[in-house]
Amino acid sequence: MSTIDQLRAALGDTDGNGTVVTDAATLDAARADRSGFVAAETALAVVFAASVYDVQTTLRFASQHAIPVVPRGAGTGLAGGAIGSAGSIVLDVSRMDRILEIDAENELAVVEPGVLNDALNAAVQPLGLWFAPDPASKAISSIGGNIATNAGGLLCAKYGVTREAVLGLAVVLADGRLIRTGHRTVKGVTGYDLTALFTGSEGTLGVIVEATVRLRPLPDGAPVTLGVFFADVATAAAGAASVTAARLRPAVMELIDPVALAFIRSHLGADAFIGTPLEGATGGATDAAAPAFLLVQFDGPAAGAEAQAALPVLAGCGGAAQLAADAAAGERLLAIRRAFHASVAAGGEVLIEDVSVPRSSMAEMFVAIAEIGRRHGLAIPTVAHAGDGNLHPNFIYTGDSVPDAVWQAADELFRAALALGGTLTGEHGVGLLKRRWLAEELGDDSYALQRDLKRVFDPQGILNPGKVFAD
Amino acid sequence: MSTIDQLRAALGDTDGNGTVVTDAATLDAARADRSGFVAAETALAVVFAASVYDVQTTLRFASQHAIPVVPRGAGTGLAGGAIGSAGSIVLDVSRMDRILEIDAENELAVVEPGVLNDALNAAVQPLGLWFAPDPASKAISSIGGNIATNAGGLLCAKYGVTREAVLGLAVVLADGRLIRTGHRTVKGVTGYDLTALFTGSEGTLGVIVEATVRLRPLPDGAPVTLGVFFADVATAAAGAASVTAARLRPAVMELIDPVALAFIRSHLGADAFIGTPLEGATGGATDAAAPAFLLVQFDGPAAGAEAQAALPVLAGCGGAAQLAADAAAGERLLAIRRAFHASVAAGGEVLIEDVSVPRSSMAEMFVAIAEIGRRHGLAIPTVAHAGDGNLHPNFIYTGDSVPDAVWQAADELFRAALALGGTLTGEHGVGLLKRRWLAEELGDDSYALQRDLKRVFDPQGILNPGKVFAD
Repeated sequence: MSTIDQLRAALGDTDGNGTVVTDAATLDAARADRSGFVAAETALAVVFAASVYDVQTTLRFASQHAIPVVPRGAGTGLAGGAIGSAGSIVLDVSRMDRILEIDAENELAVVEPGVLNDALNAAVQPLGLWFAPDPASKAISSIGGNIATNAGGLLCAKYGVTREAVLGLAVVLADGRLIRTGHRTVKGVTGYDLTALFTGSEGTLGVIVEATVRLRPLPDGAPVTLGVFFADVATAAAGAASVTAARLRPAVMELIDPVALAFIRSHLGADAFIGTPLEGATGGATDAAAPAFLLVQFDGPAAGAEAQAALPVLAGCGGAAQLAADAAAGERLLAIRRAFHASVAAGGEVLIEDVSVPRSSMAEMFVAIAEIGRRHGLAIPTVAHAGDGNLHPNFIYTGDSVPDAVWQAADELFRAALALGGTLTGEHGVGLLKRRWLAEELGDDSYALQRDLKRVFDPQGILNPGKVFAD
Repeated sequence: MSTIDQLRAALGDTDGNGTVVTDAATLDAARADRSGFVAAETALAVVFAASVYDVQTTLRFASQHAIPVVPRGAGTGLAGGAIGSAGSIVLDVSRMDRILEIDAENELAVVEPGVLNDALNAAVQPLGLWFAPDPASKAISSIGGNIATNAGGLLCAKYGVTREAVLGLAVVLADGRLIRTGHRTVKGVTGYDLTALFTGSEGTLGVIVEATVRLRPLPDGAPVTLGVFFADVATAAAGAASVTAARLRPAVMELIDPVALAFIRSHLGADAFIGTPLEGATGGATDAAAPAFLLVQFDGPAAGAEAQAALPVLAGCGGAAQLAADAAAGERLLAIRRAFHASVAAGGEVLIEDVSVPRSSMAEMFVAIAEIGRRHGLAIPTVAHAGDGNLHPNFIYTGDSVPDAVWQAADELFRAALALGGTLTGEHGVGLLKRRWLAEELGDDSYALQRDLKRVFDPQGILNPGKVFAD
């Protein structure tokens, strides 16, 4: 009996068309995620787990046969962390998508890993509650994947990253054992914080099969949105930093650099800007003088007062700020930001980078990006979650794989971010794409310690090998 | 040369009265913390480290000689975690108390571990900033200790526990190597979250020598405080849960049970209550019918509106609520809560317990505490951080050590909390005093995994042996 047939037998997958799938299209899909990277190699099979039992059985089998296992959720990652490696079993938990419990009184939910962010939010919104983690992919990303990458998003400066929203986990270890971590309580300090350790571990320590997540009260009142022009991106970055320094706390603060804005304008057409502060602003697809644009949204009971307080701060930094007249106008501004990825994707394949720097160094980072772009002759449209200093420089290319020239420019970006006290990934994770820079950021001692930690959980090294760690 | 003399030589401690101290009074002080527990045995010496170099040198020396090291900060712990064990070196970092950097723009501070919470707050308050972790001991507790225990406090339901306030650490490992974890940025997902792993590790994985902590903008406006009577503690607990369930978010919500209130009344005298909702309320030192009291404080720009919204919610649960007329009246209410520990300490030695349960189970937990108290013939004055379900049942006893009868009652408390989906320690940590219950809460697999994790950091087992883990 082949290995795959043995796995089928172990899983009780009698028709061979259900849990263990080996057709070319399925294997092909598992070679990619949303990073643009496509692996040359192919996995052995994709297991579509429907239960904790399936996950345990698969891992027990993989341990016994020393077969690599690549945990995978919705496949929306941006660093290659869930891409099937050669000869591996891709353990896909996207079908484990039940909301197991909503406890409105204790403001928590218990979910399977395949539940999409938006699905949970749709379920809890009628109760006045909200799951705060909001990666830009929230309509299609799953909570298990959010946790595995400690996903960020637009709201983190005010509402924290995914880690702050995870109270406890159920995790299947490499050998198939199931453990539970954390608490259903707000506080709890018994033993080491394994919940936080699994959060952001990118499938290298265990497979998350259940999460107890924290819900928050929906903010009161309508959000209030500002659109602000700046003459250049460094000034815009300084303006954004000034909003924070003024102790104001926008829910959303998104910066669009002139190159990115030109792409959006070209993609959406001028009509999309009617009624927004961007109507009539200069800037064509290649016009580096197109203005930099900062979008600021306040929420909660003091939204109006905070927005009013932000106006003079932004003006003092050289910004031309305009308050959205109403919620619909605010939505139109957000739609411009949301159109960014489609705008650049229209131009070819896209590598979305993800450096993060201290807020006060954002302006310098933008200058460094522009300089690197000029030197390499590359357009690097960049947007930033400006409240937390997280920048997404984008590279557009053609062909099956990221060209070396792009990686060379990205390498310089990473080093520039590290030199500014930042990190090479704010929210996407290391995965395959950034593993070669990890040791440089962590330092040798910390890197070695992390490798040793992994061995405690996965002595055979079958969990997502080749991800996060380069060696 | 004796071991101590060798250590002195290694540390360059020429006068023998500086860094390495062995006098009886110093060794005696290291036998205790604020838990009431006093160890029978005595440490070899106390090293008062003044620098990272001192910490590294001490750990290198201890590794070479296989001597246990007990990291210690301000000594305000409540679980015996920093108590010197027999033959150990107590590594006291309380003299490392410099604020190394305040970065107002990026809302962070870099501190040595011995900086007291209140000292940091005094330094950053003029900048409109605030370090949120607020254990009740914040006037005397140090930030290193906050982090080592992942300390909680009164404000956690709204502002999070210490973990949420720690961006990065510098840690000396058992063998004397120095590593840095985390980031200066809000986001950062390179590798495993060692910052979170060290947070709450109670000195068993390394010695924290520097912390980069997150500051927050000071909340706008004056806080608004409510005092609420309830006929009994279960109703009060249900009232508190209803405030949260109404999606209101008080900064402080403290519940004082009738037994605790009787102690406070007896200690402060009736005059202390003049002008508060407690003026004239019944209740003597042993009067179990003294009313239960809930103190609710809202902060931020919507404080007044939230307080108004809370009034009918509390009334609907049977509470008689009264709004403090002004900030001074609010402070008088808080002073009553703050007098609790002195009130019980006036009656003898005190063991402060620390269970945490889901908010919705708080009423049941209070009922269980009262029942356990009755059955054992013990007064168990209890206060709770009611916003997060964290209860502090207190036991009063005489003599040098906690009587078995008290531990028997405490054991029943822990089991009751676990049965309600809670934990045996919400914020104090495991230390010496709760290690015998840890495995029961974690389960065997998770317990074994945690032991294995410790071995990665501390293969010789010299870091705080006997703490957290019973074996």
